[in-house]
Amino acid sequence: MNSYKKYFPILSWGAQYNRNTLVNDLVVACIVTVMLIPQSLAYALLAGLPPEVGLYASMAPLILYAIFGTSRALAVGPVAVGSLMTAAAVSKFAEQGTPEYLGAAIALAMVSGLLLILMGFLRLGFLANFLSHPIMSGFITASAIQIAASQLAPILGISAHGETFVSLVVSLFENVAQVNPYTAAIGLASLVFLFWVRNGLKPLLLHIGLGERPADILTKVGPIAAIVITTIVVWSLELSASGVRIVGTVPQGLPSIAMPPIGFSLWLSILVPALLLSVVGYVESISVAFTLAAKKRQHIDPDQELIALGASNVGSAMSGGLPVTGGFSRSIVNFDAGAETPAAGAFTAVGIAIVALFLTPLLYFLPNATLAATIIVAVMTLVDLKALKHTWAYSRADGAAMTVTILLTLMAGVEAGLIAGVGLSIFLHLYRTSKPHVAIVGQLPGTEHFRNKERHAVVIDPTVLSLRVDASFYFPNARFLENVVNDAVSNNEKTQNVILVCSSVNTIDASALESLIAINQRLKDGGISLHLSEVKGPIMDALHDTELLVELTGQVHLSQFHALNCLSPELTQQTLADRD
Amino acid sequence: MNSYKKYFPILSWGAQYNRNTLVNDLVVACIVTVMLIPQSLAYALLAGLPPEVGLYASMAPLILYAIFGTSRALAVGPVAVGSLMTAAAVSKFAEQGTPEYLGAAIALAMVSGLLLILMGFLRLGFLANFLSHPIMSGFITASAIQIAASQLAPILGISAHGETFVSLVVSLFENVAQVNPYTAAIGLASLVFLFWVRNGLKPLLLHIGLGERPADILTKVGPIAAIVITTIVVWSLELSASGVRIVGTVPQGLPSIAMPPIGFSLWLSILVPALLLSVVGYVESISVAFTLAAKKRQHIDPDQELIALGASNVGSAMSGGLPVTGGFSRSIVNFDAGAETPAAGAFTAVGIAIVALFLTPLLYFLPNATLAATIIVAVMTLVDLKALKHTWAYSRADGAAMTVTILLTLMAGVEAGLIAGVGLSIFLHLYRTSKPHVAIVGQLPGTEHFRNKERHAVVIDPTVLSLRVDASFYFPNARFLENVVNDAVSNNEKTQNVILVCSSVNTIDASALESLIAINQRLKDGGISLHLSEVKGPIMDALHDTELLVELTGQVHLSQFHALNCLSPELTQQTLADRD
Repeated sequence: MNSYKKYFPILSWGAQYNRNTLVNDLVVACIVTVMLIPQSLAYALLAGLPPEVGLYASMAPLILYAIFGTSRALAVGPVAVGSLMTAAAVSKFAEQGTPEYLGAAIALAMVSGLLLILMGFLRLGFLANFLSHPIMSGFITASAIQIAASQLAPILGISAHGETFVSLVVSLFENVAQVNPYTAAIGLASLVFLFWVRNGLKPLLLHIGLGERPADILTKVGPIAAIVITTIVVWSLELSASGVRIVGTVPQGLPSIAMPPIGFSLWLSILVPALLLSVVGYVESISVAFTLAAKKRQHIDPDQELIALGASNVGSAMSGGLPVTGGFSRSIVNFDAGAETPAAGAFTAVGIAIVALFLTPLLYFLPNATLAATIIVAVMTLVDLKALKHTWAYSRADGAAMTVTILLTLMAGVEAGLIAGVGLSIFLHLYRTSKPHVAIVGQLPGTEHFRNKERHAVVIDPTVLSLRVDASFYFPNARFLENVVNDAVSNNEKTQNVILVCSSVNTIDASALESLIAINQRLKDGGISLHLSEVKGPIMDALHDTELLVELTGQVHLSQFHALNCLSPELTQQTLADRD
Repeated sequence: MNSYKKYFPILSWGAQYNRNTLVNDLVVACIVTVMLIPQSLAYALLAGLPPEVGLYASMAPLILYAIFGTSRALAVGPVAVGSLMTAAAVSKFAEQGTPEYLGAAIALAMVSGLLLILMGFLRLGFLANFLSHPIMSGFITASAIQIAASQLAPILGISAHGETFVSLVVSLFENVAQVNPYTAAIGLASLVFLFWVRNGLKPLLLHIGLGERPADILTKVGPIAAIVITTIVVWSLELSASGVRIVGTVPQGLPSIAMPPIGFSLWLSILVPALLLSVVGYVESISVAFTLAAKKRQHIDPDQELIALGASNVGSAMSGGLPVTGGFSRSIVNFDAGAETPAAGAFTAVGIAIVALFLTPLLYFLPNATLAATIIVAVMTLVDLKALKHTWAYSRADGAAMTVTILLTLMAGVEAGLIAGVGLSIFLHLYRTSKPHVAIVGQLPGTEHFRNKERHAVVIDPTVLSLRVDASFYFPNARFLENVVNDAVSNNEKTQNVILVCSSVNTIDASALESLIAINQRLKDGGISLHLSEVKGPIMDALHDTELLVELTGQVHLSQFHALNCLSPELTQQTLADRD
């Protein structure tokens, strides 16, 4: 019963649902719906898709997340980086504007959703860890820069194309002469207005006495004002006749439920982009979920979140939408407006459905330039070059990985940048793991403590070599361990006993066990005894019947002090007494 | 000067070379030469190559290893598993017996050698760690079984072919009716004789008063007796006319020095097999080198060994030989015979050269069946099914990885088995790394010590949650850490303070730092303070100016006792006093 409920979090919160929560969630849904309309349209256009695809992606996914999600406030839907990745993946298979392009985008959502569900059931969420923070941060920054650059074309009313940031900028410069003055006026005015809404409106609202939360929410839904005003301007001045590009006819009605195009070769060829999209979306989403849950001490289940996001994407695909994930800004609005349960999301879906059914004619004269301006303002908050500086200052390896990710994303595209970043992270991880810190330790005078001889003035018996390896013993460092002991012994001719201090050792795997057996045998051949000290309980249990303990030439000592007190009692007692 | 010498170990031992060492090394070279002749021929045939290719691979590589190698006793040359991998890789590109087949094998040695040298200069030896012990052990066992099966055909005088063990066995059964009785008699007699030499000869020799070492050496060179006797039998009874297959004409003379066939597409397509061959060969070789060095407390440099093995393979390729590596049994013979310097290897090369120049006509009537018998006897010692049992008993994850490697190697081929094994190892590693052991700790009554509450009867203040994570904080577990804290806090409503006990934390990377900052912020939003205790010196240095310490809601405590003594002084002092 419990495990059944685990997969349907709705059963937990649904049971306590009441009229107060309902009213509250309905109010939240209205606010979020208003905010989502321009976002949905804009991100569909960013992905190279018809605008209604964005609306479709903001219905079924929200309802499915409400059923399967464990976050109370996460709002799913199309997001900027996801749309950029969709465009990058799909444009390899089809020409923008063709039915094949739309079909591929929907198939991408489907495959991505299925992958997420699979990862959830197999509890593979840990794979997302390997998209480390510097890589994710660098990738988001580079994507945001590329998205902003791509939106300069619709803002200026020119056409520019490019797979990468570099080719895009070249194309922009080549076509800059075609600027449409009306489009540029609308686009730049929207841009200035939206930047002011984001930076200047809130202080103003606070100044005139509005509370913190309503001020925040008004700031977030501000873009709707730009939409309404520019739409009216274009309609009243008939600017579309002067070359201002408008959204045009958005089909009225709800999407039909249908299986996305299924083709083995298509699905196979979008597997890698779908995996990248899934992981990036998941990392973004889970981080938002944790942040919001913490404020109310709510629980988030990372594996169930995979299933919920997967179901949302499958739902999006089956209702003709593009890939979705939990978005940061819409979730914040949802939370700040006071969403108490995921039902707020389901009601938002109803709100979007009402728009799709009745209000799309109002969007006819909406200029693309305004939507482009909302995208630029939204993504500029994602650019975080300060993080690059901090990361370099903290760790050169992490800084290098982040720089590589940013540069490759800008120069070679989102997939290349991401794959290189993750590859570099794993490579650096394996490298660091394989060479743990090793210290030769000696006794601190006047104590029973043993410390690194490089950092402290310690006393060492030249016939006893005490090595402390600050890592678990397992296959990535098993041979390193053999090497360390071989080195240390070949450099110390007086050595008669080697002690491995195991205070940092949490596990010993089969490889390390074989290495320890080999080390014991080799030391024995060289006339040296091997001892272990500070071995933790669970490891002693595991080692109990193994060849290592049977063949061990020395002993296992509870503490390093005990070991030295056995092997070199005089010096040890003298050092202990030597308080200065 | 020192770094120059690092790449030429010959400069170190060469300077101390004298007449005694020379005489000693010459004697060793004679013994090893006698042992190498049948091995070289047999492993060339196993790789599907003409017999002289094995002799060529036993000259230049030995001289190059003497110059670049750091082991005093390692003997390089063609080995059983390497020959199997060569046959598996090359037979994809060309038909056995064609010049293209020979060319591809030589190119394989070349690419493998260049890869090894590259890995040596880039210090990438740690990559070999990921061929963990259970994988390597399982792979060797499966390869040995497949090699032994493949040699049943020449022993019985039938022809059988198969890429994998399974298809090979099927082919053997299909062709078993074609058995040649003369071949089978020679083959089975050789097999019985060689097994007796290996198991029964040494006790006999010891019994009649021979010393341990000469008995060992006689046992190892025993196969030469089988070779001589069966050659004489085949020659005198003219059995080759009755269908007994013989080695035939082996070209007399030294190999010519030439560049191996260079073709970008060929080299590219053998890159993966070459990499696998390099890593397997290196792991086998370095392990032998360590074992022998330990007996005399000699030093082995793993990176320089990569360069030495790489040079040996390049040398083999340029003199028409197949891929080589440091072999276990020949190195043991070399060591037991008393090799003092790598010069013994160089003299062995001269011995093989003399054979190639003058003695190949003597090999004309040598039956293939005898060589097959020497291979079977040699590889049966590599089959270690007990290791499988031990590994399963010690660790189910390692046992599973080993089983998968064995089964896939037998059923899908050496490359598939090896890649699956390594992939599984890395996957299991990433999985385990991402979920470290976490304990909620409390104070042991009567002490200042804190222990896992699951294992000890400890005292815990319900408002203070002390978490000890037994791992460094870095990106594979950074989000797990966020999850652990979120879980723990959402399950403990009374919590006002969270302490992360950092006694096992050796590093905190940029990802983990971001996670800790996020954890601090989220706990703050939930009205909880975050503290750190037992932070090591180098980590405090690194954290010094970071946002984490600036924004930390709680404090950094030197010890966990100090932390509790600040946050919950009464209970802590009372527990300390509570000695029972």
